[in-house]
Amino acid sequence: MLLSDDISPDYIKSLDIAGKKQLCEEIREFLIDNVSGTGGHLASNLGTVELTVALHSVFSTPGDKIVFDVGHQSYTHKIITGRKEGFKKLRSAGGISGFPRNTESEHDAFIGGHSSISVSAALGIAKAMQLKGEEGNVVAVIGDGALTGGEAYEGLNNIDHTAKNLIVVLNDNEMSISRSKGTVADYLTRMRSSRSYYDKKEAVKEFLSHSSVGKEISRSISGTKDLVKFAIYQSNIFESLGLKYYGPVNGHDIKKLIEILEIAKITNEPCIVHIKTKKGKGYKPAELNSGEYHGIARGNRTGLRSRSYSELAGQQLLKLAEKDDRICGVTAAMKYATGLEHIAKAYPERFFDVGIAEQHALTFSCGLASQGMIPVFAVYSTFLQRCFDQLVHDASIEKKHIVLFVDRAGFVGEDGETHQGIYDVPMLTSVPGTEIWSPFDEATLNMCIEKAVRSDGISVVRYPRGICPEGGVAEYSDCYLSGSGSDTLIVTYGRISIDAQSVKEADTLTLLKIFPIPDEAVETALKYKRVLFFEESMRNGGIAEKFMCRLFERGFSGGYHITAIEKPASAADTDTQLAEAGLDAEHIARQIRNQE
Amino acid sequence: MLLSDDISPDYIKSLDIAGKKQLCEEIREFLIDNVSGTGGHLASNLGTVELTVALHSVFSTPGDKIVFDVGHQSYTHKIITGRKEGFKKLRSAGGISGFPRNTESEHDAFIGGHSSISVSAALGIAKAMQLKGEEGNVVAVIGDGALTGGEAYEGLNNIDHTAKNLIVVLNDNEMSISRSKGTVADYLTRMRSSRSYYDKKEAVKEFLSHSSVGKEISRSISGTKDLVKFAIYQSNIFESLGLKYYGPVNGHDIKKLIEILEIAKITNEPCIVHIKTKKGKGYKPAELNSGEYHGIARGNRTGLRSRSYSELAGQQLLKLAEKDDRICGVTAAMKYATGLEHIAKAYPERFFDVGIAEQHALTFSCGLASQGMIPVFAVYSTFLQRCFDQLVHDASIEKKHIVLFVDRAGFVGEDGETHQGIYDVPMLTSVPGTEIWSPFDEATLNMCIEKAVRSDGISVVRYPRGICPEGGVAEYSDCYLSGSGSDTLIVTYGRISIDAQSVKEADTLTLLKIFPIPDEAVETALKYKRVLFFEESMRNGGIAEKFMCRLFERGFSGGYHITAIEKPASAADTDTQLAEAGLDAEHIARQIRNQE
Repeated sequence: MLLSDDISPDYIKSLDIAGKKQLCEEIREFLIDNVSGTGGHLASNLGTVELTVALHSVFSTPGDKIVFDVGHQSYTHKIITGRKEGFKKLRSAGGISGFPRNTESEHDAFIGGHSSISVSAALGIAKAMQLKGEEGNVVAVIGDGALTGGEAYEGLNNIDHTAKNLIVVLNDNEMSISRSKGTVADYLTRMRSSRSYYDKKEAVKEFLSHSSVGKEISRSISGTKDLVKFAIYQSNIFESLGLKYYGPVNGHDIKKLIEILEIAKITNEPCIVHIKTKKGKGYKPAELNSGEYHGIARGNRTGLRSRSYSELAGQQLLKLAEKDDRICGVTAAMKYATGLEHIAKAYPERFFDVGIAEQHALTFSCGLASQGMIPVFAVYSTFLQRCFDQLVHDASIEKKHIVLFVDRAGFVGEDGETHQGIYDVPMLTSVPGTEIWSPFDEATLNMCIEKAVRSDGISVVRYPRGICPEGGVAEYSDCYLSGSGSDTLIVTYGRISIDAQSVKEADTLTLLKIFPIPDEAVETALKYKRVLFFEESMRNGGIAEKFMCRLFERGFSGGYHITAIEKPASAADTDTQLAEAGLDAEHIARQIRNQE
Repeated sequence: MLLSDDISPDYIKSLDIAGKKQLCEEIREFLIDNVSGTGGHLASNLGTVELTVALHSVFSTPGDKIVFDVGHQSYTHKIITGRKEGFKKLRSAGGISGFPRNTESEHDAFIGGHSSISVSAALGIAKAMQLKGEEGNVVAVIGDGALTGGEAYEGLNNIDHTAKNLIVVLNDNEMSISRSKGTVADYLTRMRSSRSYYDKKEAVKEFLSHSSVGKEISRSISGTKDLVKFAIYQSNIFESLGLKYYGPVNGHDIKKLIEILEIAKITNEPCIVHIKTKKGKGYKPAELNSGEYHGIARGNRTGLRSRSYSELAGQQLLKLAEKDDRICGVTAAMKYATGLEHIAKAYPERFFDVGIAEQHALTFSCGLASQGMIPVFAVYSTFLQRCFDQLVHDASIEKKHIVLFVDRAGFVGEDGETHQGIYDVPMLTSVPGTEIWSPFDEATLNMCIEKAVRSDGISVVRYPRGICPEGGVAEYSDCYLSGSGSDTLIVTYGRISIDAQSVKEADTLTLLKIFPIPDEAVETALKYKRVLFFEESMRNGGIAEKFMCRLFERGFSGGYHITAIEKPASAADTDTQLAEAGLDAEHIARQIRNQE
C-alpha cells in the first residue's frame, strides 16, 4: 500500500514509474470508496489521477503554482497535499471543500469553483512572480468544457511571450458536464481523430535536431524513445493564439505525461499541453455515464430527482411549449440539471445548449426575443452572475421579454461559498423592468412559470435546489396571509415560507411575487405592530430592505427586524446552512419570541 | 450632390459604382462637418462608410438584419436609413442615439452600446428567423477591438452549420480604442502582412472551379476579374472555429466589398468576411491620431482634460506607485481615458492593458493580488458590469485585496442609456468585503485613493466623468457636516454634494465613505426632524435605501425622502440628466421646500 495518510509531493517524486502507476490505482480506489459515500464530483476527478501525480512529479508546490479550473479535477491534488484525512468530511461542515481553496491550503494557488478563470488567474500569478523575481512555474489545468467560456479565451489571448513560466494543461475529456458544445469542441475532436497528428516521427526528429529549444529537450530526455510519439506540430488554433503547443498525449499514461510536462517546463516559454483523459476512468458506472456521475449528492438522493424544482419546472416548460411555438429553452451546459431535457427532446429545434457561456446565452436569448420568440434561459443563480451586463444592456434597455429560470437560488449545500445562489436578488432588482416570482410548492411553481412567460420585460422565476413540496394553494395571488390574528407579522418568500407558516406565535405573509413588491403586501403589513422579514438571499440589496423602505414611507412606526444572509455559507447540508443563518423554523420562532 | 435628405437604401441600390464612390465621399464630408460640431465617434465611423454603402447595396433592411457591434461604426447606416436630419441633434436630448437602437429604427436590428455582443445577438436573430420560416440574412459587423472580448468568442464558438443565413463581417481597423491587445490582434497583423495570403490567383481559381459552391460563385460573378484578388484560404483561426473565411479585402474599395458580400450571401453557409479599414479615413487629423479622435466631446472640451477626475486619479496612482512597487495598473483598453498612461509610462512592467476583456482583467488582478501585489483596475462603471461574477467568486470569497477605480460613475451624458454608470453601487454593496469611497473634489479624490490602496478586500473609489473641482477639505473624514443648524438634513455623496451644500434651507451631510455606511453619519442624521437623501445611482439597491434602514432600526421617526435614479437617462448633457432626475441644486432646494 503506497497511499498512506502521510502521502506528500516529496513522496510522489521518490517513486519510480511502476510505483506511481500503483499509487494511481490506489488513489482511484480511494476516490471511488470515499466519494460515493460523501458525495462529490467523481467522474472528472477519476480522469485526472495520473495527470496530478505527473504534475507533482515535475513541479513542486507551493513554489510552483497549480491552478485547477472549476476544480472538479482537484481531489487527487488534495490527497497528495496533506488532505487525505479531510475526505471523510468532504464538502460537509468543518471538512474540506470540493474545490481548490487558497484559504484551505497553500498548495491551492487559486480558488476554483466557477469555470473558465484558470488561465486569467495563472497569468496574474505568473506576472506577479516575475515582478517579485521569484522562480517557479505556474500551471493552469483547464478542461475542454471550461474552454467554451469566453473568459478562458480572454485569458489565452492575453498570454504573450513574456509569460515564460506559464503552462496551460488542456484536459480534454471529450465532454463537459453534458457534452462540450461548439466548434472548438468539434475542432478538438478533429484533432483527436486525425491520425496525421500522430506518429510524425520525422517531423518531431526534425524539430528536435534543428531548433535550439529542441536540442535542449533532446539532451535532457535522451533515451526517451517514446518522445517521438508526441506530435509537436505547428498549425492549430492554439498556435494561432501564439502559444507553443504540445500534444495530444494520453492523459492516463503517467510516463508520457511526466515527459511532456518536463519538456513544457524546460522550454521556458508559454505553452499548451493537450492531454486526453477519460472521465470516470477506472470506475465502470462512471465511465459509461459520466454525465450522471458528474456530481454525486450525499447519500445518493437521485431517486427523488423526479420531485425537484428543476425537474418540475422543466415539465411545466414543456407543457407551455406544446401550446406556444414561440417558447424556446436555453441552457449553458446544464440541460439535465435544469430539467430542460424535456423541451430538448420534444422540440430540439427550439432548444439551445450553448456550452459554459452565460454571457452568450443571455445575448442570444435577447436576439431570439427581438424576433418575437420567448426564450427561457434556465440558469443557476450563481452562474447568472456571469451575465449581469447583458441583463442591463441587451435585455433591460430595450425591454426585451426574456424569461429566466433562476435555479439553485438560496443556499445550495455542499458546494459551499462559491456556488451559493444569494446575489441574484440584488442584481435583478436593480435592473429596470424586472419582475421576480418565488414559488414555494408545485402549484405556485407552475403558476409563476406561466405568469413569467405571459409577462413582459425580464421575467424571473426563482427557486431552490432540492425537492419541491406537493399540494399547495389553489389560486394565484401575489401574496398569501396565514395565521390567526397575531399582532406580529412574518414576511418571507420562497422555500423557507413553509417553515415560517408553521410558527404559531405570528401571522405569516408569504410573497409569491417578490419584486416589484406588491402594494397589497405593504398594505397588509401596515396593520401589524411588529414586522419580521426572513429572507434567503443577501441582506444588502435584498427584498427585506426595500419592503422596510416601503413601510416607513407609508408612516409605519412599529418594530421591524430583518433576518437575511450576511455572507456566503461554507459547505454543509442546506438545513444546517439555513439554521446557521437563522432561517429555519426553530430560529424564526426564537426570533419572534425575542422581539415580543 | 447625391446625399440628399431623402437618401434611402433603395437609392443606394440604384447607384452605379462611380455613384456609390461619390456618395461615400459626400457622407464622409457630412460626418466630418457634423460630428466635429455635435461630438461623437468620428474615426471609427469614417472607417465604415464604404462598408455600410456596400452592405445596403447587397442586403435590404429591415428584412435582412445588420447588427453593429459597439455601434461606433453605425453613423453611415443611420444616415442611409432615414436619420440624416437627426445628426443635428446627435447624442443630445430628443436627438438620435450615438449607437444602434432597435427602438429608434427598425433598421437597427439590435442595441449596440457595449462591445463584443454582435455575434451572439445575430445568432439569436438568425435562429429565430429560421424558426419562423423567414428569409433573409443576418450580418454582424464586429471590429477587431471587440474581438478581444470573451463573449465574441462564445458567439463564434456557437455558430454551427445550421446558421446558414449568418455573415460575420470582421472590420479590422488595426487598432481598438487604444490599440488591439493580445495574440488574436497579433494574428490579424500577421495575416495582414503576409503576402502569401494575397494574390493566390491559382488557389482561388482552383477553388472556384472545383467546389460546388465555387462554381456557383463563379457563375454569379462571371466577368469580375478582380475576384481572384480575394484570398479564400483554408487554414486560419476562423476556419479552426468552423467558419468559412473570406478575405482580407480592402474595406475602402466599394466594388470589392460588394463582390465579397455577394459571395458571402450566395454561399448560404455561416462565414467570416474579413475587411481592412482605416480609422478616420479621409480626415487627416483623425487618420494620424485615431485614438484621440475615437470619441469627440461636444464643444471639444479636451482643453480641460487635465482637470478630469480620471486624469487626477491617474496622477495620484503614479505618486503612490513610486513609493510602493507592489502597485500595478490594469485597464481593459482604456489606458488614456482612465488616466493610467502615467503609470504605464513610468512603470511599464507594472501596467497591464488586457484589451476589451473585463472578466479577465478582474481575475488577472486577483491573480496578482494572490501574490501580494496591489492591482488597481481602472474601469468605467458601465463596463464593471461585465465582471460581477469575478468580483463575487475570485475577489470576495477569499478576500483578495484589489482596488477598483470606478470611473464614469453616475450620469455620463451623451452616450445615453447604454453607458450610464448607475449599477455599480447595487452590484458592489451586495458583495461581502467591499468598501466604497466617493470623492467630490481633488483633495478627497487623492485621500480616497490612498485609503483604498491601504485598505483590504475590494476597495473602490467611485467618481464621475468630467472636471474635478479644485480646493477641497483639508483632512480625511468618513463624512462632512455643513450648514447652520436646520432641522432638515440633506444626505448625499459624490459630485452632487457640491450642489447640495449650496442649498441654504437645510444642513448637508456629505458621505465620503459611502459603504459600509459610517456609524457617525447615522448618529448625525438621527438628530434631525427630516432626512432627505439625494443619490446619483439607481434607487433600488442604492445607499439611500440602506441608510433609511439603519435610521429606522435606530428608532428614527422623522420624515425620510429618497431622490435617486429610477431608470437610465437617455442621451443629453450631464446637467440636463441630473436636473431631470431631481439631483441638481434647483431641484434639491425645491424638494426641501416641498417637505417642509
